[in-house]
Amino acid sequence: MIERADRESRLTEADHLSVRVWLRMLSCATLVERRAATRLRQTFATTLPRFDFLAQLERSGNGLRMTEISERMMVTGGNITRIADQLESEGLIARSPAPGDRRASVVQLTPAGEQAFAEMARRHEGWIVEMFGGLDELERRTLYAVLAKLKRHLSATERKR
Amino acid sequence: MIERADRESRLTEADHLSVRVWLRMLSCATLVERRAATRLRQTFATTLPRFDFLAQLERSGNGLRMTEISERMMVTGGNITRIADQLESEGLIARSPAPGDRRASVVQLTPAGEQAFAEMARRHEGWIVEMFGGLDELERRTLYAVLAKLKRHLSATERKR
Repeated sequence: MIERADRESRLTEADHLSVRVWLRMLSCATLVERRAATRLRQTFATTLPRFDFLAQLERSGNGLRMTEISERMMVTGGNITRIADQLESEGLIARSPAPGDRRASVVQLTPAGEQAFAEMARRHEGWIVEMFGGLDELERRTLYAVLAKLKRHLSATERKR
Repeated sequence: MIERADRESRLTEADHLSVRVWLRMLSCATLVERRAATRLRQTFATTLPRFDFLAQLERSGNGLRMTEISERMMVTGGNITRIADQLESEGLIARSPAPGDRRASVVQLTPAGEQAFAEMARRHEGWIVEMFGGLDELERRTLYAVLAKLKRHLSATERKR
């Protein structure tokens, strides 16, 4: 989009900076995601959506309904029901009736799922540390703080709509 | 992942910062992408992969082969061939034989495609400016610079592998 920045646009230079920042962020996020996906496939023969599914359960502690998992998944691409069926058949997750709502079910990690996820997460952290190793600690702290502000703005404007 | 930070991990506090930065970046990128996708759908009845496909052609100037488009697409989710078929049937893109390789074809924007994309891109820029409006100019410049360094590190380590 940088290349068409001057074409009949009513945006100012400062505005274009936002677009350049966004394209750079998207490009970084895509590179990190793709590399993590490649390594998950090579190391554990699994996918990023499957990893993310297990991560949401691990973070929740008490299990989640399918709708909650769907809302929390940060990685797209992957049918939630199909992923759940696969993970259940591999014994990594288990479903039980939701308390107070017999039509819904709650999904939880099994002990085998917890163990498998812990190993994946340990390796995944190592890959992320490696990929962000090009930044020194001050740069990482700065990035963290600026992204926090961006996220607050995004959440605040989301609620207003 | 923050929650399991202390579990049998050999990573240091500084390392965990990388994971926190990554999750926050992924979360911001996901929020921006989802909101852009919603608005593209509401305003132009189109999708982010279709928009990204047209954007790659617009940026290339001279058209691209399908394999090049596939490599450059930053947005996943969307079969490239199916998207091309749709856009061609709507008259927004055209295919012609690749010079020097009769088996391959080059995809280009049609004049109608250029016009449609220009309008979409103008609105899309406005949404991005709005979403990044929570940051002041210094913060945007800082973010841009730190992401540039991260991207260089990612590219450099990609080539080594």
